[in-house]
Amino acid sequence: MNKIKISAPATIANLVCGFDILGLAINHPQDEMEMQLTKEAGIKITHIDNYSLPTEPTKNVAGAALLALMEEYPDKNIGFEIIVNKLIKPGSGLGSSAASSAGAVVGANYLLSNYFTKHDLVRFAMHGEKVASGVKHADNITPCIYGGITLIRSIFPLDIVPLSAPPMYVTVVHPQIEVKTSDARQILRKEVALKDAIKQWGNVAGLVAGFLQNDYDLISRSLEDVIIEPIRSILIPEFDKIKMQCKEAGALGGGISGSGPSVFMLSKEECTAKKVEQIMKDIYDKIGVDYHTHVTTINNEGVKIN
Amino acid sequence: MNKIKISAPATIANLVCGFDILGLAINHPQDEMEMQLTKEAGIKITHIDNYSLPTEPTKNVAGAALLALMEEYPDKNIGFEIIVNKLIKPGSGLGSSAASSAGAVVGANYLLSNYFTKHDLVRFAMHGEKVASGVKHADNITPCIYGGITLIRSIFPLDIVPLSAPPMYVTVVHPQIEVKTSDARQILRKEVALKDAIKQWGNVAGLVAGFLQNDYDLISRSLEDVIIEPIRSILIPEFDKIKMQCKEAGALGGGISGSGPSVFMLSKEECTAKKVEQIMKDIYDKIGVDYHTHVTTINNEGVKIN
Repeated sequence: MNKIKISAPATIANLVCGFDILGLAINHPQDEMEMQLTKEAGIKITHIDNYSLPTEPTKNVAGAALLALMEEYPDKNIGFEIIVNKLIKPGSGLGSSAASSAGAVVGANYLLSNYFTKHDLVRFAMHGEKVASGVKHADNITPCIYGGITLIRSIFPLDIVPLSAPPMYVTVVHPQIEVKTSDARQILRKEVALKDAIKQWGNVAGLVAGFLQNDYDLISRSLEDVIIEPIRSILIPEFDKIKMQCKEAGALGGGISGSGPSVFMLSKEECTAKKVEQIMKDIYDKIGVDYHTHVTTINNEGVKIN
Repeated sequence: MNKIKISAPATIANLVCGFDILGLAINHPQDEMEMQLTKEAGIKITHIDNYSLPTEPTKNVAGAALLALMEEYPDKNIGFEIIVNKLIKPGSGLGSSAASSAGAVVGANYLLSNYFTKHDLVRFAMHGEKVASGVKHADNITPCIYGGITLIRSIFPLDIVPLSAPPMYVTVVHPQIEVKTSDARQILRKEVALKDAIKQWGNVAGLVAGFLQNDYDLISRSLEDVIIEPIRSILIPEFDKIKMQCKEAGALGGGISGSGPSVFMLSKEECTAKKVEQIMKDIYDKIGVDYHTHVTTINNEGVKIN
């Protein structure tokens, strides 16, 4: 059986105002995997990174996603061997678990002559997200599989809408602190003020229109979150300062990537994106917080078989 | 001075999931006005309809809008005479007050050689809405002035985004019952569940994408309101039945027009829009509620000077 190489991009969920519905794939970082189809039922997972992630299929995000896929595949006498080199740090807020789940099911589907649709693959990969965070969310998986910017109009039933957008640069800073997705969810209020919800859906509508109409100014004006960010940003050191200074430097806007702690900024020009990176570095250097940064672009192809 | 004739279209605010942010102008019904510029300061308003609306400028929606416009016009020695023939029934939920305000300021601006921008005119006309309902909302005024479908991303500061959309037919039924905008607002809860707000902004995002991508199916799937409609629809006789039967007959979807009591449905084909009208008639005939119906299309030009 042929061995394939897979790369699965990092993703930014929420995109500021689109909590739980919007996501974006980026070109860097990406997880790498090797995968092959076997004639014996079962999944064998090996991690060659240093994150000590579980390799038992039901407890591994790629494994759980593959089990869901195999459940719907008619031939039960198949299995997969998969070697994962995780280059997206777990807990970064950059869709690390989604990349494993999405990469595994896209790879498996390739080995099965594309028996399933992309829509199916999102469904399967959501089982991986459940293992990772306890919730079957799709806002990282979908852009990881489809590439570009995606809207989850509805999760049950799953309704995926790929959105075109003008070229943008993405700057990401990942402060090396731990924010658990489950904690980041628990601090949210279960009720929100109607007037805030109206502002939020005004911004979501503006952001979608900005993407589809290639209107950078409208994108910039719409990148405002009055509901989630005011609460979650308290978990991220110097969040307000980063955001203010990056926007002053010309970034279109940005916010928390997923549930954090990574912070991202969108820019129209590469030089702005690099200026923004320097601002992030300076701020974290000053307070002595370790970090990684990435300056990258939108990934429009999603998981790739090399 | 020349006398001009003005027609100002009815409008449908909210468009189901876009509470307070989306609106749509329709070709029928339309208010008619005659207007002329005078050399003496002051506003003279005459109504030739039978609605006994106040004609004192500060208490009349067109008057209040014109006063706001005159406040910002440098030459203080001007005035307007305006004759209003209101063909959009007040209290119908079809933007009757907005048509008067919008028609008056667009007409005045024409007589003043288009001194102001459309954006300014929306600001002025909002003063009329304040007279009518106590709130400076813009979701009827904006489509009335711009035509088509408009998004108010933000009201303070005012951010208007015109949205293109595929051709659609609009069926409206106006049951002859009274629902005051202020009452329809008061019954709303001030807090909403976050999970419902997420559903709503997923649908708003889907609806905007559906309009801009000419995707009728996506428009149809997105025409769902989990926050306002479940509360307001109790004020409208047979609302659920109308909605269900119209969708079964092939309507894309629809809901309450503004704060009601009118109900609207969007359809791709004229024959469907007419079928929908018959369903509405049959339902209200059966329970003995008087009504008016309209089968019309999207008005893409807004207030028109004839």
